[in-house]
Amino acid sequence: MTGPIRICFFGDSFVNGTGDDDGLGWVGRLVARARRAGRDVTSYNLGVRRDTSADIAARWEEEARRRLPAGCDARLAFSFGANDCAEDEAGGARMPLEATLAHAEKILRDAAMLAPVLMVGPFLPGGPRVEARIDRLCGEMRSLGAELRIPYIETRGFIARCEVFLREADAGDGAHPNRGGYAALADFIGASPAWRAWLDGELTSAKDAPADR
Amino acid sequence: MTGPIRICFFGDSFVNGTGDDDGLGWVGRLVARARRAGRDVTSYNLGVRRDTSADIAARWEEEARRRLPAGCDARLAFSFGANDCAEDEAGGARMPLEATLAHAEKILRDAAMLAPVLMVGPFLPGGPRVEARIDRLCGEMRSLGAELRIPYIETRGFIARCEVFLREADAGDGAHPNRGGYAALADFIGASPAWRAWLDGELTSAKDAPADR
Repeated sequence: MTGPIRICFFGDSFVNGTGDDDGLGWVGRLVARARRAGRDVTSYNLGVRRDTSADIAARWEEEARRRLPAGCDARLAFSFGANDCAEDEAGGARMPLEATLAHAEKILRDAAMLAPVLMVGPFLPGGPRVEARIDRLCGEMRSLGAELRIPYIETRGFIARCEVFLREADAGDGAHPNRGGYAALADFIGASPAWRAWLDGELTSAKDAPADR
Repeated sequence: MTGPIRICFFGDSFVNGTGDDDGLGWVGRLVARARRAGRDVTSYNLGVRRDTSADIAARWEEEARRRLPAGCDARLAFSFGANDCAEDEAGGARMPLEATLAHAEKILRDAAMLAPVLMVGPFLPGGPRVEARIDRLCGEMRSLGAELRIPYIETRGFIARCEVFLREADAGDGAHPNRGGYAALADFIGASPAWRAWLDGELTSAKDAPADR
């Protein structure tokens, strides 16, 4: 499985790599690592700051179809939900849990018809209320991934204990790390067997499955 | 002029950085350089392989509006035309010169209403017929930039003499360099006074100009 692949990464500012003075984020670091290992990867980083699950639901398919020509060996990665859990002006969540989950299920089901899909779980250093929402969302996303047979990599626990990430976020805008935090996150995600299997195309997409499954 | 800025880079595979094992391309290198110099830059790389001027005309505004919230200090950069000049299956150009120019004028005029715009000229190592088309297109784009008062950085002549770029392209897929060629191109573009003036916001966008100009 070493032919050329094209990956679209959809998500929020953490996917975009906001705050990284190296201009790579975790996405750029993992793509560079795969290329240096000899994989012919073309990468499209489609992370957008402040995007909620609703924003991504509204745009992902159109932006993916413009970048993935018919017949290419494609991959789709998603990471969202942190902005859904962030505080709105009234102190509630920007998006209720039920809405986030409805968007996530629709996105992941539709995406799996197009290409092998990976979901990277949300995280957001932001105080106890936000973190309680993230906890609950992560539990639901884990179940959803299992139900849809889509690999899910949880990052919340790792980030919560990742000193360089938290230190850089504190020294920055409070949420986004710099090169050290993104490098640590890239190492963590890249070490996951789910990442490797998805990149290598060992996970079949739903379009390859029998229609009655 | 050191407040946060958000840049959308639209273009083709050379904007995407296709072939760069460092995952940066010229765009990523110039963004990282600006950030290391203390500029708070958020960058969206919206280069797409094989995109012609027609493809970019059809998508740029929607993708830009999703990424540039009202009130942000935005920049727009474009680099396209190489795929327009590439050979189609019948040995002609994928896009006639007149169509490319019509797309370019519409894109640049509309973009300048939104934010300061930079145009980076096309290049494509591809034999005498393709290169003659690129030559002609570059001349027209230079005039268009002058007419619209949009800075235009020509790269064709630089690339044609850039040994590392041409050597890496030869060793690769014939068109795309690797890290050395992209680093050289980033140095060349970054050294242009037009790049610096555009990044620093010294070039006003059309929306700031009197309506009758």
